[in-house]
Amino acid sequence: MHDTRFVLAAGTTATAERAGLSAAGADPSLASTTPSADAELLTYGQPVRTGTVPVSPDGCPTPALVTRAVRDCLGFDVTVVDAGLSEPTAAPTVSVGAKPGRDITEQDTVPTAYGAFEAARQFGHALPNDELWLAETVPGGTTTALGVLRALGEDVMVSSSLPENPIEQKRDLVEEGLAASSLDPGDAAGQPKRALRRMGDPVLATLSGLTAGAVETDTAVTLAGGSQQLAVAALVRHGGYEGPLSLATTSYVADDPTADLRAGAEGLDLDLTVTDPGFDQRDHVGMNRFVAGEAKEGVGMGGALALAERAGVPMAEVRAAFADSYGELLDR
Amino acid sequence: MHDTRFVLAAGTTATAERAGLSAAGADPSLASTTPSADAELLTYGQPVRTGTVPVSPDGCPTPALVTRAVRDCLGFDVTVVDAGLSEPTAAPTVSVGAKPGRDITEQDTVPTAYGAFEAARQFGHALPNDELWLAETVPGGTTTALGVLRALGEDVMVSSSLPENPIEQKRDLVEEGLAASSLDPGDAAGQPKRALRRMGDPVLATLSGLTAGAVETDTAVTLAGGSQQLAVAALVRHGGYEGPLSLATTSYVADDPTADLRAGAEGLDLDLTVTDPGFDQRDHVGMNRFVAGEAKEGVGMGGALALAERAGVPMAEVRAAFADSYGELLDR
Repeated sequence: MHDTRFVLAAGTTATAERAGLSAAGADPSLASTTPSADAELLTYGQPVRTGTVPVSPDGCPTPALVTRAVRDCLGFDVTVVDAGLSEPTAAPTVSVGAKPGRDITEQDTVPTAYGAFEAARQFGHALPNDELWLAETVPGGTTTALGVLRALGEDVMVSSSLPENPIEQKRDLVEEGLAASSLDPGDAAGQPKRALRRMGDPVLATLSGLTAGAVETDTAVTLAGGSQQLAVAALVRHGGYEGPLSLATTSYVADDPTADLRAGAEGLDLDLTVTDPGFDQRDHVGMNRFVAGEAKEGVGMGGALALAERAGVPMAEVRAAFADSYGELLDR
Repeated sequence: MHDTRFVLAAGTTATAERAGLSAAGADPSLASTTPSADAELLTYGQPVRTGTVPVSPDGCPTPALVTRAVRDCLGFDVTVVDAGLSEPTAAPTVSVGAKPGRDITEQDTVPTAYGAFEAARQFGHALPNDELWLAETVPGGTTTALGVLRALGEDVMVSSSLPENPIEQKRDLVEEGLAASSLDPGDAAGQPKRALRRMGDPVLATLSGLTAGAVETDTAVTLAGGSQQLAVAALVRHGGYEGPLSLATTSYVADDPTADLRAGAEGLDLDLTVTDPGFDQRDHVGMNRFVAGEAKEGVGMGGALALAERAGVPMAEVRAAFADSYGELLDR
């Protein structure tokens, strides 16, 4: 029971203030609250200080409700790391010195990247658990993930929390960011901290540091998420770690034809687990948004589903817990 | 399972830097690390960032090991509030804006008292649980508790983490502190925030704020601890709350002849639960220190024991879990 710990890195980046880039918040002005609210939902099962259950512009609820539903079934330990929150949260958080990230088109996008990576590495090294499941919540995070992948020279397209992946907009932003950082694609190969600072976000810095520290003590790490966790894996591989590393995501990300999750995971030698929550088996207003391709991942949803499957909890039970919490929090 | 939350307020006061006042740390210079380490022990079951298991000058282990042992048996949710920590901790913490307290003989002892009380009140108001068990870790805390009780005009003597309660030293310090604050005993009656700021510590401010906020929404509150929780209860009563309030402590505090725990609890109309862990039934090196009158309480030990008793967990099982953790962490 004490062997598994689920760690959520919650943070923000100014990149998310651009319209059309993310579904994490009913509009871009609400995106900065989403990670603080997700941390509360995962910790307490409802908003506490933020007073908000994040929804997409089309009404898709935050995947935090799915992860929390699994936690209600399994009862695993959760730790939230402040990976650059910009709004107060009532969730208890571990500090690694991360501050909100700047816009990806700036030259110095994540000034706290080196310090946060190092503090997170020490934290990951010191944690006593046998296995860590690492999750993220950072609106706009797939764009900074693409930025990091390009800086490292990894040719993988990222997924999106929107049904229509705004690929062109992401490519343009990354191109602009690389130019502002005087980088060509691949110029930061083998230099993960440089890629993080120039093109990343504080959540990527925190998660790659946590992973680097945890594997030093042979703690098993599962990156719970989609494209952003692919970027974390790339950062850890470019830091020289060649050992075992797992990625657990949803069928929504894995089956997204605009992204290359499976190929990316294979290229980085990741042990991939894909889990389908079976939301298409019910005609539920919240589940239907996921089936329509919204959100897809976040707050470790795919990892939580994999934990449920491993524990033998039927997906029908997870769906029921999700429907209960949706009913209590949003359907009123 | 989600109805009970155990909240630990962890903080420091410069008052603890005086020799002979507290057993929370092998010497006064280590006392500032104790709350950060206690928070890690309760959260992770072992030190993580602090690298320390606090012990008294005579080798009595921190009561955090007892509370954690109960948590290992029961699995209740824990939230740590940063109530003025002065050393980094790897435990996730909720911020209420508290800073380490100054020495009780200064005029403005807790400059953050008003803000911390108010932020904690809002947090306690917003927490969704049916019942809260509130715990503390603050070396030197019985002296500031005495200061607050005197400022409010409550004539109760406090207990001590030392086998020999340094009553005269505490009385002298409180007298000096009252003089520095231009207060006579009872001058802050009905003014809990004034008593906190002039004579208290940031942990008392946080706990009394949490309690005040929680009872506003009819959340049941049990103050888990001894003399310091008596001071919290007095603060809440002087704030005008006359409703139900519980205090759960150990037999070590309740039976301390130098203090007046039972009379104090009765005077403040508290529902008192006293639990004996039965440490005298084993000849265990760590338990023997408690039997000899050291530590007595802290980190909600008495409350945790009461939770175990309520859940029907035999004390022998708690003792076994404590012995295991002592063996792993200290007996090497």
